Amino acid sequence: MANLSQPEATNLAAGQNPPPEQQLQDHLDDHAFSFSPITLKKLPHLSDYLQDLQPTGPNPLDRNPFFHPSDGFYVNTSDIVLRQVACRLSPSGTIASPSHHLAYIRAGPRKQIFFDHCATRAAIVTCGGLCPGMNTVIRELVVGLWDLYGVRQIYGIKAGYRGFYSIHPIELNPKMVHNWHRRGGTVLETSRGGFDLTKIVDAIENHGFNQVYIIGGDGTMRGAVKIFEEVRRRKLKVGVTGIPKTVDNDVGIIDRSFGFQTAVEMAEQAIHAAHVEAESAVNGIGLVKLMGRSTGHIALHATLSSRDVDCCLIPETEFYLEGKGGLLEFLEQRLKERGHAVVVVAEGAGQDLIPRTTAQKEERDESGNMVFLDVGAWLKTELKKWWDKEHPHELFTVKYIDPTYMIRAVPANATDNLYCTLVAHSAIHGLMAGYTGFVTGPINANHAYIPLADVAQAKNEVNIKDHKWEWVRSITNQPDFVKSKQNLV
Amino acid sequence: MANLSQPEATNLAAGQNPPPEQQLQDHLDDHAFSFSPITLKKLPHLSDYLQDLQPTGPNPLDRNPFFHPSDGFYVNTSDIVLRQVACRLSPSGTIASPSHHLAYIRAGPRKQIFFDHCATRAAIVTCGGLCPGMNTVIRELVVGLWDLYGVRQIYGIKAGYRGFYSIHPIELNPKMVHNWHRRGGTVLETSRGGFDLTKIVDAIENHGFNQVYIIGGDGTMRGAVKIFEEVRRRKLKVGVTGIPKTVDNDVGIIDRSFGFQTAVEMAEQAIHAAHVEAESAVNGIGLVKLMGRSTGHIALHATLSSRDVDCCLIPETEFYLEGKGGLLEFLEQRLKERGHAVVVVAEGAGQDLIPRTTAQKEERDESGNMVFLDVGAWLKTELKKWWDKEHPHELFTVKYIDPTYMIRAVPANATDNLYCTLVAHSAIHGLMAGYTGFVTGPINANHAYIPLADVAQAKNEVNIKDHKWEWVRSITNQPDFVKSKQNLV
Amino acid sequence: MANLSQPEATNLAAGQNPPPEQQLQDHLDDHAFSFSPITLKKLPHLSDYLQDLQPTGPNPLDRNPFFHPSDGFYVNTSDIVLRQVACRLSPSGTIASPSHHLAYIRAGPRKQIFFDHCATRAAIVTCGGLCPGMNTVIRELVVGLWDLYGVRQIYGIKAGYRGFYSIHPIELNPKMVHNWHRRGGTVLETSRGGFDLTKIVDAIENHGFNQVYIIGGDGTMRGAVKIFEEVRRRKLKVGVTGIPKTVDNDVGIIDRSFGFQTAVEMAEQAIHAAHVEAESAVNGIGLVKLMGRSTGHIALHATLSSRDVDCCLIPETEFYLEGKGGLLEFLEQRLKERGHAVVVVAEGAGQDLIPRTTAQKEERDESGNMVFLDVGAWLKTELKKWWDKEHPHELFTVKYIDPTYMIRAVPANATDNLYCTLVAHSAIHGLMAGYTGFVTGPINANHAYIPLADVAQAKNEVNIKDHKWEWVRSITNQPDFVKSKQNLV
Amino acid sequence: MANLSQPEATNLAAGQNPPPEQQLQDHLDDHAFSFSPITLKKLPHLSDYLQDLQPTGPNPLDRNPFFHPSDGFYVNTSDIVLRQVACRLSPSGTIASPSHHLAYIRAGPRKQIFFDHCATRAAIVTCGGLCPGMNTVIRELVVGLWDLYGVRQIYGIKAGYRGFYSIHPIELNPKMVHNWHRRGGTVLETSRGGFDLTKIVDAIENHGFNQVYIIGGDGTMRGAVKIFEEVRRRKLKVGVTGIPKTVDNDVGIIDRSFGFQTAVEMAEQAIHAAHVEAESAVNGIGLVKLMGRSTGHIALHATLSSRDVDCCLIPETEFYLEGKGGLLEFLEQRLKERGHAVVVVAEGAGQDLIPRTTAQKEERDESGNMVFLDVGAWLKTELKKWWDKEHPHELFTVKYIDPTYMIRAVPANATDNLYCTLVAHSAIHGLMAGYTGFVTGPINANHAYIPLADVAQAKNEVNIKDHKWEWVRSITNQPDFVKSKQNLV
Repeated sequence: MANLSQPEATNLAAGQNPPPEQQLQDHLDDHAFSFSPITLKKLPHLSDYLQDLQPTGPNPLDRNPFFHPSDGFYVNTSDIVLRQVACRLSPSGTIASPSHHLAYIRAGPRKQIFFDHCATRAAIVTCGGLCPGMNTVIRELVVGLWDLYGVRQIYGIKAGYRGFYSIHPIELNPKMVHNWHRRGGTVLETSRGGFDLTKIVDAIENHGFNQVYIIGGDGTMRGAVKIFEEVRRRKLKVGVTGIPKTVDNDVGIIDRSFGFQTAVEMAEQAIHAAHVEAESAVNGIGLVKLMGRSTGHIALHATLSSRDVDCCLIPETEFYLEGKGGLLEFLEQRLKERGHAVVVVAEGAGQDLIPRTTAQKEERDESGNMVFLDVGAWLKTELKKWWDKEHPHELFTVKYIDPTYMIRAVPANATDNLYCTLVAHSAIHGLMAGYTGFVTGPINANHAYIPLADVAQAKNEVNIKDHKWEWVRSITNQPDFVKSKQNLV
Repeated sequence: MANLSQPEATNLAAGQNPPPEQQLQDHLDDHAFSFSPITLKKLPHLSDYLQDLQPTGPNPLDRNPFFHPSDGFYVNTSDIVLRQVACRLSPSGTIASPSHHLAYIRAGPRKQIFFDHCATRAAIVTCGGLCPGMNTVIRELVVGLWDLYGVRQIYGIKAGYRGFYSIHPIELNPKMVHNWHRRGGTVLETSRGGFDLTKIVDAIENHGFNQVYIIGGDGTMRGAVKIFEEVRRRKLKVGVTGIPKTVDNDVGIIDRSFGFQTAVEMAEQAIHAAHVEAESAVNGIGLVKLMGRSTGHIALHATLSSRDVDCCLIPETEFYLEGKGGLLEFLEQRLKERGHAVVVVAEGAGQDLIPRTTAQKEERDESGNMVFLDVGAWLKTELKKWWDKEHPHELFTVKYIDPTYMIRAVPANATDNLYCTLVAHSAIHGLMAGYTGFVTGPINANHAYIPLADVAQAKNEVNIKDHKWEWVRSITNQPDFVKSKQNLV
Repeated sequence: MANLSQPEATNLAAGQNPPPEQQLQDHLDDHAFSFSPITLKKLPHLSDYLQDLQPTGPNPLDRNPFFHPSDGFYVNTSDIVLRQVACRLSPSGTIASPSHHLAYIRAGPRKQIFFDHCATRAAIVTCGGLCPGMNTVIRELVVGLWDLYGVRQIYGIKAGYRGFYSIHPIELNPKMVHNWHRRGGTVLETSRGGFDLTKIVDAIENHGFNQVYIIGGDGTMRGAVKIFEEVRRRKLKVGVTGIPKTVDNDVGIIDRSFGFQTAVEMAEQAIHAAHVEAESAVNGIGLVKLMGRSTGHIALHATLSSRDVDCCLIPETEFYLEGKGGLLEFLEQRLKERGHAVVVVAEGAGQDLIPRTTAQKEERDESGNMVFLDVGAWLKTELKKWWDKEHPHELFTVKYIDPTYMIRAVPANATDNLYCTLVAHSAIHGLMAGYTGFVTGPINANHAYIPLADVAQAKNEVNIKDHKWEWVRSITNQPDFVKSKQNLV
Repeated sequence: MANLSQPEATNLAAGQNPPPEQQLQDHLDDHAFSFSPITLKKLPHLSDYLQDLQPTGPNPLDRNPFFHPSDGFYVNTSDIVLRQVACRLSPSGTIASPSHHLAYIRAGPRKQIFFDHCATRAAIVTCGGLCPGMNTVIRELVVGLWDLYGVRQIYGIKAGYRGFYSIHPIELNPKMVHNWHRRGGTVLETSRGGFDLTKIVDAIENHGFNQVYIIGGDGTMRGAVKIFEEVRRRKLKVGVTGIPKTVDNDVGIIDRSFGFQTAVEMAEQAIHAAHVEAESAVNGIGLVKLMGRSTGHIALHATLSSRDVDCCLIPETEFYLEGKGGLLEFLEQRLKERGHAVVVVAEGAGQDLIPRTTAQKEERDESGNMVFLDVGAWLKTELKKWWDKEHPHELFTVKYIDPTYMIRAVPANATDNLYCTLVAHSAIHGLMAGYTGFVTGPINANHAYIPLADVAQAKNEVNIKDHKWEWVRSITNQPDFVKSKQNLV
């Protein structure tokens, strides 16, 4: 799939002049160029702070009865993945942008491992909201640890971070988890908050866990960084890894997170229903609110998949209702041309447009951010008010659909299930190899290990200054809400 | 999704020793490396052979009422996409592999175009077997040409290549194609063969087409190369572009072709049914034959997605039935352990194992290749014979499913629909910019233009010497059919 | 499917004593009984008020090239369908209940018809909200009129009743409607209201329509009765038939209306999502609001289909929140036992429990009824308030799903598509035979003709005094909210 | 749903003259008729052969904490269901056909029961091929016995009849079966054959089972009759009940069997795929083989649901390929008119047309019947031969789909899940009430108890002499393969 969501290498500064076409072409034809320098992102390893740590032996896959790994099977530190693949050349035949490249260590099994299968005691926890594929990740962690590395002590932490210190862990085995990849939600249950660093790391020590797999969103990843740092401070032989779970796809660096394709698939169904409702009415508007607090990836992808959306509003870009070039003018025109229109709005879009009561202005969520108001309900009301005022005697219908919980709760589709499988095995191989404080995920379709701290900070927003965003908008043919000179007259 | 299907950069020669881990690590830590040289693949352009060709003016997107393209919106020749992202470093801090990098020109709208909207006359043709998404590509070509570039003369060629010279083209417009993206198959109809170069290019001239969009598989792409060359020989101002359609995903260079994700989704359902049949029987075997004549991508992806497959047999690797480490021994063990087993076989697998009659040995298909025998039906018979011989008094069931035509005929899922949308618009922008003889497709998730001739030759096989294939096999835990020393004793 | 929705024959008066088991058994064994008298419901016919009306000739199906109707093919007035199939016997060997039986005339083609194919001019209109299958009914009316009776003048009235007098009718033919049965909504568009009897019948006369097919809910059917009566008053040769469309299944006499099975299927998916959300949370409640203003059929059927619902609240029965035997006590117990619970509520349930502002008390809808408040949103708030008060320091989650517009807008499933096909053909045969002022629908699975006036008045409610409703409740094991003596103490 | 599948009451003898319309109408108008006599089918009861058997007490539902059954809740012997609802009147105002009516005892809970919850020991077995909903029936038997009647000894017999005497029963409880209704197949496993009466009844005695629930097809039901008779002969207090499972819907008396609607839904998808393949080719034929050895119900329903089938061939009616009015002539015409055609064939159709080798003529299946040949593969070959001969230089494609195992293995849809729920609870109530040797199923949508022996003999075929079949054929507009005089000339 075309990755619409990643910030790209070519972050062109305003005013930068591209090289004259012809001059460049002369230079480029079948010509070899030199590359900008590359920086490889280093990964934490248990041996960083456990000086005497030695490998426990060769990878047990060597002893698999049916599978005979060749030398090339094992990955080592010299295997890297480049981050930036879209570049801009300079006329002189060098890379103009980016001026500096990043690379990450590839994921996969290592020849030597640092955990004996009898002594390994793994804990798996899921935090935050639901996302298609959570159960597949859990299942594959259990099956992978059991089948590939012979681990028999695998525990599920119930109900998120608070489960470490408040609920007894449950033992997991392949038979138990056998059908979990066909179930939505998380059998381990999940919750928000409940992060108490000392209690959690105490619990890890008390239970004797030495591998911790943490599945969650950006807040959860920030917690995972703290756990990793505290574990390191206490000099425990405990590997900590994060598996980013975000149905919004707002985690940076990695190509995308699991569940996203499934969410787009379901979102497309909601859009289709809205389209049918709009088409079947006189001056019908179908309005769909989709997930995406700070990023509009689901809205954007579903818009491009469905081909039935007239306007897609996302948090990364502003819009306005009234006046020339505004949403209402645009919808009026579409209704005139086609008799109906479909609007998709991400939940984080237009927050500055919705009037707030004093109480709402002061209300803050757990993280201290201003709370979100329901942009869908607001927009529905505004549209009705506008029409009643402008066309009091004409029929008009707005059908508003909020499919959020119907999207989150489905099992992962085939594409996401495969992703979950690879990411889980990748995480296991990394911890077994002694790495810690890392996240696993695909970078340009190659699974890699990324420092946990980097991922916890990176944000994957739709880059609206990017060529791709503009390209997309040219396809949807929707307003860009630019108050151009022409408009301002 | 993790791209399991692409040949990778690190094609390690046998015997190559990876650098000592520690030595490398010392070097690498937060250290900048230099890169191997890059070669940019040049693209044919109408001006190559039409010396006086001038742009017809600026891109009409500049005049879009709602969309105001910024300077950064337009792509130019200096925008490139790197092909290889997985590399191996040398201890000295340079790239050991690959020794040479490839880059392709990025796809997207150009500031100057070479076709006036009034004079543009586009033809669209679909060839070969069905693939989910064909109708979406057609729809988007029509809508894109109409909406973005104001083209009004758009024609569908019916029934594949032979339609150019034997059936009257049908006029297409956005209203007609409005719902086509929800329909499987191709409304334009398709057929195999019928390629007659002279007649086709004569028809292109006679109908006055100056943009030709050809949707088809590798055979079709080879035909497209010939059309492009003949057009160039005749010095016609006719742009020719190919859009690879292969449900098997066997086209090289590009990340994947459209319809593939949908096919995997449907294949997973067939596997699930086979699993249910196997589980519900005593000593039940579920056997599923999937598409893939020379490549096992669908089989492989569906296997990893479904998590219910015990053994996946693909054309790229050999297997054998009898003896130590053979399929029968493996299945016997699985039946003993679990009471049932699921086998997935790609249609091109095991062709050398099936006994052929003299007639079958001599039979050749249209391309002169030995015809394929039905590996699924053969395997079903062999399994029954084996069990009757080994366990004559025990129950045994083989349920064989061939879901081919139920897979091919569905509409594209959301992921594939988005792909089709972008690839169609990308093709339009390329032809409008005067490029010709090219294919459009994503390379590391960035849409790029690739010389048609390169794509027609490239083959995307599962690289079984690659690390990834082995990794996959370690996950499925299936036999590798290596007759190891131990086995040969 | 077990018909849970029909009022049954055995409407037992309170206090009626069933006969002693043994005495009855003696009587009944392999013994013949006599039946209560039967009344056949008469049907209006054009000849009732057009004295000289003669058949135009034999049914044109006689001349079909491939199909050769036998004598038995044609239905006549002596073919009837019994309405009541569940009875109660008296000890004396007679039917105790019902004391009087009803019968209806069977639907189907008649040997003689009253419309010449050249002179037939049909109008089709859809009114009210969306319902899966509307497009299939339209398609089949068009295809049936065209193929079976050779009618070529078939018109669609756009946007409901008001379309008769305000929008030009659109001509329909089989090619146009070919794929409509795969599309949700109604291509003809629909609206509420707009009923102006004089204008409508004037328009029917002016356009020369002599067959009018009206697809809509109970309000629409009451309008259809008036149109039929006005047509009769004006002594027009115009047949009028109604096809009940009610996703809620609240139309009486007929077994069920089209789209209902599809709606239940989709509702089950919403319930499943709510169940996943509830299961994956700590003290999670999944709350689903389903369609059903005066009847709980969708809620009831979806509850019995899904097996995951803890409590199903419908308009036909009362419930209360607080106190012994109340909903809150019940949920508290379920959360304690299972950790989660799922509640389904029909939109018309609990309206008397929701506090209304003075304005809301006075607000009336178009029909003069008190407007409905959102029982789902109210219940969500009440549940949260309750928990915060009773368990202030424990986690609790309510996920509320309103899938209404995602349910209504899908295409009909196979079962409903078949229903639509038969009902449309049945309607055509009836009008062709000269019947008018009737509705067509299945009675005990046999398609029959029913006087329009009867259907417009009949209401299909869940009979909560019926054995079936109690049986259902014993299966769901939910509270009956009976304030028994024990509770009242 | 319109019940297309049931033999009806009006089985008109050839040559019978319907009454003159007018004469009858005069008689009928709002007039009361008298009915033919009714026979109530008696049901075996444990007390028939256990003279001293007394009820163990009142139904434990009386003590349910949340559910308070009213008097009307319990069903008794005087509650009956009529079998025939479609009748023909005589001019004299009586029922002409049927001359004799049948009635069955209604299903449901009884006031007095004959099994104490502590002493009840239930066995559940599944036999024969897969059918959607088997797991739901098992689940509901377990949950119903446990929740409603407090039974704690519930056992699953594995792998069909043979499991009684060869495999240890597995204990079942609600927690185990919790999610089974979402899974296809049967978790208990199934097999054909293995019926050994003495061993089975011995095992029932040895294990102490006193309630036996047998889920299977007509062969299984015949076995169940023998078990019931042997149990009665031995004078055991063991209730035996059968739950008909036949995806083909070939069991008589009951409205339909579970899984049928789901099968039709899936069959429609296969037909849709065949239609897409046919439409996308030049002279394309889509050929689908559907389940139905002696009955064409699935083929017929799927044909009417899909609206895309040109010809539907079923076992109940003959067809021929060549000559006037034959299939080939019909297809030739359709290809000429529309460019493609879709043919559906039930597996039992056309068996007399397929040439058999001597060996095939003598081959018999386990029941001594001639084995079935693959009508789909044969038809595909015949079609190709015909075209090659008649139109050697024109394109032609046949795409053949056999979706059997993809249909059988899916979970039940909402409609079937509800059916499974009611039928399971109905069976429990019947055994608890002391009935035995019965089958439970809906008759005219009212669940009833039917003597097992009657059901084992009844066959539900498509009655091709019936009005309904002709009506259906007039809708599909397919040939009736009647060699009329005109044809025979």
